[in-house]
Amino acid sequence: MSERDWIHRYFAPLARAPGAAGLLDDTAELAPAARPVLITTDAMVEGVHFQAEDPVASLARKLVRVNVSDILSGGALPREALLTLGWPGSRPEAQLADFAQAFGDELGAWGISLLGGDTVASPAGLFLSLTLTGVCEGTAPIRRVGASPGDDLWVTGTIGAARLGFRARAAGTASPYIASLLEPVLPGAAAASVVARHASAAMDVSDGLLGDALALAAASSCGAGITLDEVPFAAPPAGLAEALDLSTWGDDYQLLLAAPVSVRGRLESDAISAGLGLTRIGHLRPQPGLSVSYLGRAVNLPETLGFEHGRIGVEATRP
Amino acid sequence: MSERDWIHRYFAPLARAPGAAGLLDDTAELAPAARPVLITTDAMVEGVHFQAEDPVASLARKLVRVNVSDILSGGALPREALLTLGWPGSRPEAQLADFAQAFGDELGAWGISLLGGDTVASPAGLFLSLTLTGVCEGTAPIRRVGASPGDDLWVTGTIGAARLGFRARAAGTASPYIASLLEPVLPGAAAASVVARHASAAMDVSDGLLGDALALAAASSCGAGITLDEVPFAAPPAGLAEALDLSTWGDDYQLLLAAPVSVRGRLESDAISAGLGLTRIGHLRPQPGLSVSYLGRAVNLPETLGFEHGRIGVEATRP
Repeated sequence: MSERDWIHRYFAPLARAPGAAGLLDDTAELAPAARPVLITTDAMVEGVHFQAEDPVASLARKLVRVNVSDILSGGALPREALLTLGWPGSRPEAQLADFAQAFGDELGAWGISLLGGDTVASPAGLFLSLTLTGVCEGTAPIRRVGASPGDDLWVTGTIGAARLGFRARAAGTASPYIASLLEPVLPGAAAASVVARHASAAMDVSDGLLGDALALAAASSCGAGITLDEVPFAAPPAGLAEALDLSTWGDDYQLLLAAPVSVRGRLESDAISAGLGLTRIGHLRPQPGLSVSYLGRAVNLPETLGFEHGRIGVEATRP
Repeated sequence: MSERDWIHRYFAPLARAPGAAGLLDDTAELAPAARPVLITTDAMVEGVHFQAEDPVASLARKLVRVNVSDILSGGALPREALLTLGWPGSRPEAQLADFAQAFGDELGAWGISLLGGDTVASPAGLFLSLTLTGVCEGTAPIRRVGASPGDDLWVTGTIGAARLGFRARAAGTASPYIASLLEPVLPGAAAASVVARHASAAMDVSDGLLGDALALAAASSCGAGITLDEVPFAAPPAGLAEALDLSTWGDDYQLLLAAPVSVRGRLESDAISAGLGLTRIGHLRPQPGLSVSYLGRAVNLPETLGFEHGRIGVEATRP
């Protein structure tokens, strides 16, 4: 089947936005926007970010979600997407149909229009890349930079579900967390306006909570203090080692935000109104670096985790 | 070297636009635009679109150009880019440096800002995808649809250089056209305003001139009549067979446009002012399908080329 046949059969039905021109052109037109437009790209590679036998429907949903979490963290609502699909000829057409079905459903769930993309052969394995735009809920995007010492640090949802799923799958045991590894559960779209209204800085948690907290703090020329006991872990850790494992592994795709202490009450009530799980886990400090406590005692991070170049090193890619 | 190290060393210096925020965030902000914004994505895969031993600097330049030609064909000037770079660990860092250098130079030559992207491991081979935006020179994009029967068909530059390069490389003979295969020569940025001012429809020639002419005509519910003798081939074909070979192979990345007969004179003088090579090669017809003549005689295309599903079938991907 040629590229054009694939596009028409599986993806043209998803491209209903006027700017997509039915995927008949090589370019699409972005819808005009009265507020700033954000754009992001995230890729997923077979053998690196997922396994060959993972269900393609899960991959489609995860591909959308890992990009959506970036847009939400900017205080923006996702809007338009372009897909680069590197498809191995060895995968049957039924898998492509599954992929397109789940991809279309997931775009629809977020109100995202498919604008275009490129479908190419990728003999060595599936290669997925999505470019996603989003329109700011406020007059400017929320960035990693912008927080001040003393700001609270908050995180949405729960942390560690993907790590628990990874461990269960590696051990060959059944676990509800394996679903979280394959298809991360994101905060709802309402998170965007909560971030836009209250956050001084924000990012998504994709590379591990502690490392990401340090990255956000460093971008704002601050340090971060995290109380591990307050972190909303997906399951209660057995002790410090597991708490650190869950908070440094990543693939959470929750939002990490800083907000002034003065908005604490409004932030909490807005989060409740939006149905957004939100937990205060620490604060920003004037001293650079990361300070972590557990059960009332300081955790010696350089010894426990091994700092590398001033940041916590978990590789962004792993099999 | 981790993804963050790569980004900072090689790509952050290229991301000078304010919206890129130095690549420190997971999202970038598109610059506001007073006119419509187009967006396109084109990918290139090792073993499919290029060979493992092709120089990475050429790949970087070609990746930018294959996207630029799409934007120019919409009557728009390229503006902002996001790169998905799937990099095999087996390729040395010096190659990455070469890639980034050529990529930055090529972006700079077109006035394109790097806004962001994603760098991932791709163990099986290099995988490149670029998303490119462009701002329309007119009040609306020029599309494949919009032409009328009787409109002239024009093409920029020359056709067939990549095919000549491919044949020379396959035969192991030296040829200046091998450079055109690795790095297609595009019309200049001034082509965008010529298209925007005069074209009723346009597209880039990437899948072969004849098939693309048929696609443009069909999008406008017309047919196309092409006089092969008028096509500005990169080198004079030896006869009909070679003329058809050069005009169906693709990888030209020139612009194909339709324009009313009434603007013929202004189009030609604007093209001259813009330094744009432009040749009239035929016209649109009310009857659907493709009609080709050579040396004053009709060419029997179904016999000569083998129509498939009403279009000329050259596979978009080949080794």
